[in-house]
Amino acid sequence: MSSATLRNGEVLSPVVTPFDADLAPDADRLVAQCRWLIDNDVGLAVFGTNSEANSLSVGEKRRLLEALVGAGLPVQRMMPGTGCCAYVDSIELCRAALELGVTRVLMLPPFYYKGVSDDGLFDAYARIIDGVADERLRIHLYHIPPVSQVPISGALIERLLARFPGIIAGIKDSSGDWSNTAMMLERFQPQGFDVYAGSETFLLPTLRQGGAGCISATANVNPGAIAALARNAVALEAAQGRNGGTAADDAQAALDQVRSVFQRFPMIPAMKAAIARAANAPDWARVRPPLVPLDAAQAEALARELDAIGFSISGL
Amino acid sequence: MSSATLRNGEVLSPVVTPFDADLAPDADRLVAQCRWLIDNDVGLAVFGTNSEANSLSVGEKRRLLEALVGAGLPVQRMMPGTGCCAYVDSIELCRAALELGVTRVLMLPPFYYKGVSDDGLFDAYARIIDGVADERLRIHLYHIPPVSQVPISGALIERLLARFPGIIAGIKDSSGDWSNTAMMLERFQPQGFDVYAGSETFLLPTLRQGGAGCISATANVNPGAIAALARNAVALEAAQGRNGGTAADDAQAALDQVRSVFQRFPMIPAMKAAIARAANAPDWARVRPPLVPLDAAQAEALARELDAIGFSISGL
Repeated sequence: MSSATLRNGEVLSPVVTPFDADLAPDADRLVAQCRWLIDNDVGLAVFGTNSEANSLSVGEKRRLLEALVGAGLPVQRMMPGTGCCAYVDSIELCRAALELGVTRVLMLPPFYYKGVSDDGLFDAYARIIDGVADERLRIHLYHIPPVSQVPISGALIERLLARFPGIIAGIKDSSGDWSNTAMMLERFQPQGFDVYAGSETFLLPTLRQGGAGCISATANVNPGAIAALARNAVALEAAQGRNGGTAADDAQAALDQVRSVFQRFPMIPAMKAAIARAANAPDWARVRPPLVPLDAAQAEALARELDAIGFSISGL
Repeated sequence: MSSATLRNGEVLSPVVTPFDADLAPDADRLVAQCRWLIDNDVGLAVFGTNSEANSLSVGEKRRLLEALVGAGLPVQRMMPGTGCCAYVDSIELCRAALELGVTRVLMLPPFYYKGVSDDGLFDAYARIIDGVADERLRIHLYHIPPVSQVPISGALIERLLARFPGIIAGIKDSSGDWSNTAMMLERFQPQGFDVYAGSETFLLPTLRQGGAGCISATANVNPGAIAALARNAVALEAAQGRNGGTAADDAQAALDQVRSVFQRFPMIPAMKAAIARAANAPDWARVRPPLVPLDAAQAEALARELDAIGFSISGL
C-alpha cells in the first residue's frame, strides 16, 4: 500500500464534439459547451476518445483549438489530445497548441501497428518531443488499451521519465484495470508524474493514493458533481458519511450511480443524446461514422433511466 | 466448392517507403523502387500497411503520389491506400488520387474505435463515396483484422455492393484466414468484385477459385517470381509439375519458401533490410517509429537465411 496523502484533485472532460448537418465541427457550439464545463470547474481535455478526435482531421483540430483559445477559454485548463498515428501529425498539433499558449497535451501512442516494442514507442515520443523542441511542453501519456490496443508499460514510462523529466508530466489510465493505476500511483506519482484515472469510477481511490484526479467521459454530462468531489476531497474525507464511510465515499457512490446508467449504452452517442435532450438541441446527437447515434428506443430508455435516478443536466 | 475457372491474375505490392536521414519520405528513391516493381510486372499498392502509410501525414502521401504520377509511372497499375480514421482525410486522399488520374484505391475502414457496427462502417464508406462524388472511383476494401482490429464482414460487403455497384470494386483479404477468403471468392467474386489474397501464400488457391490475384508485402522483395505465377497461371496449371502437381504448384512452393524466411523476422524492417543489402544502400533500412529497424544480428541472420535458400534481389 502507498503511504500517499489524499489531496484535492482536478477533473477534465474529453469534451464531446458537436457537428453541424454536414458533420462539420461546430466551433461555436463547442465554445459554449467548454464554457459551461469551465463554469462547472471541469478542465478541457478536448480531442480525446470521447471527442471523436480520431474522426477529425489535423486541420479541423487546429481550427477548433484556435476557436477555443480565441474565445478566451483558459489555456491552463486545457489538455488537448495530440497523439496521432503519424508522429509528424503529433508534432504539428503540439506546436499549434504551444503557439496558442496551451502547454499540456494528452498523447496517444501511434496506434495503427500492434505488438510494437517499447523501443519503438519510446522513439515515437522522443521524436515528437525533439521535433516540437519547446521546453514548455507537458505530455500526459494516454493509456487506453481497450481502444488503442497499444498499451503503455511501466518500463516505457520509466525510460521516458528518465530521458525527458518535466516534459513527461503524467498519464491518463483508461485501462479500466485498477491494479495498473495503483502500480503507476505507487511508482511514478511520487516523482511528480500526475496520474489521472480514466474514469470517475476510480476518482476517490486515485486521490487517496496521491493521484491527480480524473479525465472522464462522464464529466461531459455530470461535471459539477465530479469536480466537487475532486475539489473538496480533503474536506469530504474528513467528514462523516451516511453509511459508515466518509462523506467522500458518499459522493463517490453518487457519481457511480450516474455513470452506471451511461455505461449501459454506447457511451459517446449516449452522452450526446443526453446533452441534446438537456439543451433541447437535437443537433447535438450527431456523431461521425464509424459511430452511430442512439436510435429512438435507446434514447428513450436512456432518458427514462436517468429520470429514474433523478439525474438531469442543468445549465445547458 | 466454387466452380470458378482459374485465370491469370494481378500482383501488387504495398510498396515500402524510403526515408531520408530526417525520416522524411524520399520521393526520388520511391519513384525508382516503383519503376523496378513495374519492370517486374508488379502493381503499386503504395500507402499500404507495409508502406508505413499510417505513419505518414495526408500531405506526405499526396506529395508522394504526385511524384509517382509526375515521374510517368502508370496510373492504371496504382492502388494507393486512402483509408484513414477520419473520413474527411479519406475523401481528401481519394480526390487527390482521382485528380492525378488514379482511380483504384485500397481503403481501410476507420480503425481507431473498436467493436463498431456494420451500420457505422457502411456510413463511413458511404460518406467517403458521396464526398468524393466521382463515378470513376474504384474502392477495394482492406480487411486486415490482425492490425486494424476492425473487420469487414460479408454482410457489410453485401450492403456496400448493393448500394454502390461498380464503385465497390474488390477487397484485399489480409485476415490470414483462408476460409474467409474462400467465402468472399464464393459469394462476391462472381459479381465482379475482385478478391485479392493478402499474401502470395494464398495466390494460387485464390486464382483457382476465380480470384483476382494478390497484394502482398513480399512482392516488395520477390516481385518477379510472384508476378510470373499470377501472369502465367493458366499455362502453369496446364503443365506437369515435378511432384505430381502442376507447374503452378511448384511455382507456389518456391514463393512460399522465400516468404517463410521473411516471416521469421519483423516483416517491414526485414524487407527494408533486404532491399538495403541488395541495393547497397543502408539508408533503405530506415523505418518510422513505432517500428524499429532490424538490429545487426537480425540483419545478418536474415541475409544468411536468404543466402541459404539461394535467394537474392536483383536489378535494384
